[in-house]
Amino acid sequence: MKGFFITFEGGEGAGKSTQIEKTKSYLESKGRKVITIREPGSTPIAEDIRNLLKSVRSDDRMCDTAELLLMYAARAQLVNTLIKPKLEEGFDILCDRHDLSTIAYQGGGRMMNMEDINAIRNVVLKSFRPDLTVLIDVPPKVGMARARNRGELDRFEISNADFFERVDKAYHDYAKNHPETVAVVDGTLSVQEVSEQIIKNIQERLDV
Amino acid sequence: MKGFFITFEGGEGAGKSTQIEKTKSYLESKGRKVITIREPGSTPIAEDIRNLLKSVRSDDRMCDTAELLLMYAARAQLVNTLIKPKLEEGFDILCDRHDLSTIAYQGGGRMMNMEDINAIRNVVLKSFRPDLTVLIDVPPKVGMARARNRGELDRFEISNADFFERVDKAYHDYAKNHPETVAVVDGTLSVQEVSEQIIKNIQERLDV
Ligand SMILES: Nc1ncnc2c1ncn2[C@@H]1O[C@H](COP(=O)(O)OP(=O)(O)O)[C@@H](O)[C@H]1O
Ligand SMILES: Nc1ncnc2c1ncn2[C@@H]1O[C@H](COP(=O)(O)OP(=O)(O)O)[C@@H](O)[C@H]1O
Ligand SMILES: [Mg+2]
Ligand SMILES: [Mg+2]
Repeated sequence: MKGFFITFEGGEGAGKSTQIEKTKSYLESKGRKVITIREPGSTPIAEDIRNLLKSVRSDDRMCDTAELLLMYAARAQLVNTLIKPKLEEGFDILCDRHDLSTIAYQGGGRMMNMEDINAIRNVVLKSFRPDLTVLIDVPPKVGMARARNRGELDRFEISNADFFERVDKAYHDYAKNHPETVAVVDGTLSVQEVSEQIIKNIQERLDV
Repeated sequence: MKGFFITFEGGEGAGKSTQIEKTKSYLESKGRKVITIREPGSTPIAEDIRNLLKSVRSDDRMCDTAELLLMYAARAQLVNTLIKPKLEEGFDILCDRHDLSTIAYQGGGRMMNMEDINAIRNVVLKSFRPDLTVLIDVPPKVGMARARNRGELDRFEISNADFFERVDKAYHDYAKNHPETVAVVDGTLSVQEVSEQIIKNIQERLDV
């Protein structure tokens, strides 16, 4: 039987990594086999692309189109060489960021043309979509305050407050238009309460 | 006055690098300012992408879609941050491989869907095209024999003979369909004779 592909979305410090571990424990307690991954990354080539995308460098300023294509190059490599085969083998896959991050960050944050983004997505993903996307909702300021505690900021984290407000708005707009596949959970609650909301959504929507 | 954007295409060992130097000397003798670059590469980020694309690695097998997107990510970075601004400043730019290489290698060699390639090109280049493309025509076997003398083979050069036959056919098909912008020169002649053909084409087509 095919596994479930569940993606975790939200701004910096929303609690994605924290909740992926909680969700993994829950699914494993139900006897399921679970793989946790992150985007961009999680194959050797995709991790090299992640480094290119995240590193703050003074020798070259990455243009928005290159950023978009690097994101999708890493996604193509991960989906084709890991996600699809492992779902077929019956693993559930919990992915820290996926396509909705591109809509939020490159579309919302960078204000790139959504038709361009859709054209690339269509080449890379065709009709492949997550079974469920969990959007952990925290006000950008709360998330950034949490993220800053983690240490040095990467090329995205150094963006200004307006950028993160646009990311947040793009997330909410998408969720509003796709209620059947996106579950919005209140990320300002305690870790345990957020986890309960996520598990409730998984139970109701995926019959686990 | 805007400079000319001239791209050099052809299989491995066709003589692109050799002829770019000859063409540069000619244009400079006419008092023009010339920049020579290569694809993928020629900005710090694009050179990092080049390394990813060319390196033969055993830890991960790059999927065709990732390869295509990495090529265009490097191209986007180069066109947006260097080629367009330098053409505006009046420099002629001689580029070792450009978009036609993607048609030949990813389209012909890898047999990727041309509609997918066109969709990505449309996002990255819109209507931006070279003023002239010089296709140096040598039989794949002749070119590969020359290239092998250069030392270790990269991830493209290790492809089999069928791959290079498809690349060659895609180059010729494109040239046949675009005679107004692609000049085909016989690369089996001497370096001096090939150079004379290229300069003749530049004089006739670009009014230099
Ligand atoms: N519900 C929560 N309430 C308070 N702090 C949280 C909560 N969830 C996560 N955190 C903390 O916030 C920081 C960022 O969480 P993390 O899971 O790494 O977020 P993300 O992966 O979305 O960037 C971590 O220090 C984490 O312990
Ligand atoms: N017209 C020619 N005849 C014979 N050898 C050539 C000719 N042009 C180039 N070469 C040699 O072939 C090899 C490959 O040429 P190069 O310019 O590096 O090709 P490319 O850049 O197209 O791979 C080099 O050793 C070069 O000196
Ligand atoms: Mg995280
Ligand atoms: Mg060369």
